[in-house]
Amino acid sequence: MQLFQKTFRLKSYKRGFHLITKEIKVELPEIAQVKAGLLHIFLHHTTASLTINENTDPTVREDFESHINVIVPENAAYYKHQNEEPDNMPGHIKSSLIGASLSVPVTNGKLNLGTWQGVYLCEHRNRAMTRKITLTLIGQ
Amino acid sequence: MQLFQKTFRLKSYKRGFHLITKEIKVELPEIAQVKAGLLHIFLHHTTASLTINENTDPTVREDFESHINVIVPENAAYYKHQNEEPDNMPGHIKSSLIGASLSVPVTNGKLNLGTWQGVYLCEHRNRAMTRKITLTLIGQ
Amino acid sequence: MQLFQKTFRLKSYKRGFHLITKEIKVELPEIAQVKAGLLHIFLHHTTASLTINENTDPTVREDFESHINVIVPENAAYYKHQNEEPDNMPGHIKSSLIGASLSVPVTNGKLNLGTWQGVYLCEHRNRAMTRKITLTLIGQ
Repeated sequence: MQLFQKTFRLKSYKRGFHLITKEIKVELPEIAQVKAGLLHIFLHHTTASLTINENTDPTVREDFESHINVIVPENAAYYKHQNEEPDNMPGHIKSSLIGASLSVPVTNGKLNLGTWQGVYLCEHRNRAMTRKITLTLIGQ
Repeated sequence: MQLFQKTFRLKSYKRGFHLITKEIKVELPEIAQVKAGLLHIFLHHTTASLTINENTDPTVREDFESHINVIVPENAAYYKHQNEEPDNMPGHIKSSLIGASLSVPVTNGKLNLGTWQGVYLCEHRNRAMTRKITLTLIGQ
Repeated sequence: MQLFQKTFRLKSYKRGFHLITKEIKVELPEIAQVKAGLLHIFLHHTTASLTINENTDPTVREDFESHINVIVPENAAYYKHQNEEPDNMPGHIKSSLIGASLSVPVTNGKLNLGTWQGVYLCEHRNRAMTRKITLTLIGQ
């Protein structure tokens, strides 16, 4: 059994949902050495998130952004955490609803995603920031 | 340390929330060989999801279906991804809110779930489809 | 490669969102032995959940409780699962939206969380209960 771990920073992305599958593959070429295993992808932030979803039509990602803003609006009257920008508290809630980490099987040296699956970075802040990710790969 | 990995297809389920704990146990009898470990359950699709919840009363699963349709309705005026059936875009969003994979501890040769916990397949499409799952078990 | 697994009970917490990072570290001192690995945190319950979010300002955790009650209200007219207290069925739905388990990288003998990240127990029931957690650490 082998274990590989690497921390890196994504380039900054604007608010919204973005495909980052390629960036992950590039950062951990050791995936090619693993016949069977698991890749864990961890985001070190609380106002962004990671998910897996449709990897082709960009309108899917636009609709995610539209609808998450309906589920978690800015400026709700009952928010007490008001000392930061109006996108901050909703960003925290969106991060926990979607989640800040993923695990994906690795099979025969490749991420074993479904045909239509890609990894999304979900950036919930207006101000683009670089986001830190730790990849941990366990396999044989 | 040992690693077992297996891909299989579930039978097709109608739209809604369904217990699949038994199906998973049957597909990976190697669980019985593991004294302590982790089982990762990965769904290769973007309009269905996996979760763990109450394993007894079927009305719990019916209420999940009712309420997720309130949180993520069909035909929202702002959806741009309109070239597929009306259950498609909501299915994508439901899949990311609930999530498409799970990890469960394995202890003394068994899934170490709580007394009331079962694994659910959450089928968000009207048209029943077979869904592909990859199980990855790491343990000793 | 090493694997450590431990089951323990948290003290009971009142309904709401609570930081439990310290409790987890105390329960598994073997984290200090692991140079690189993954810690899985599993909650054996269906009306509570685990997430990672902001670890400093308590109003963030209060806003989580306020807003999750808007997303998943009590006494929705369509709930069929009515034989338990009014906080039961919403608790099930909240548990699946937020999720009942987490995986966190371990690096150089420590949980590799971001500066602002802490582990939350999200207690969705009014009646305080002790909650059971299983920690599984795989690493080298």
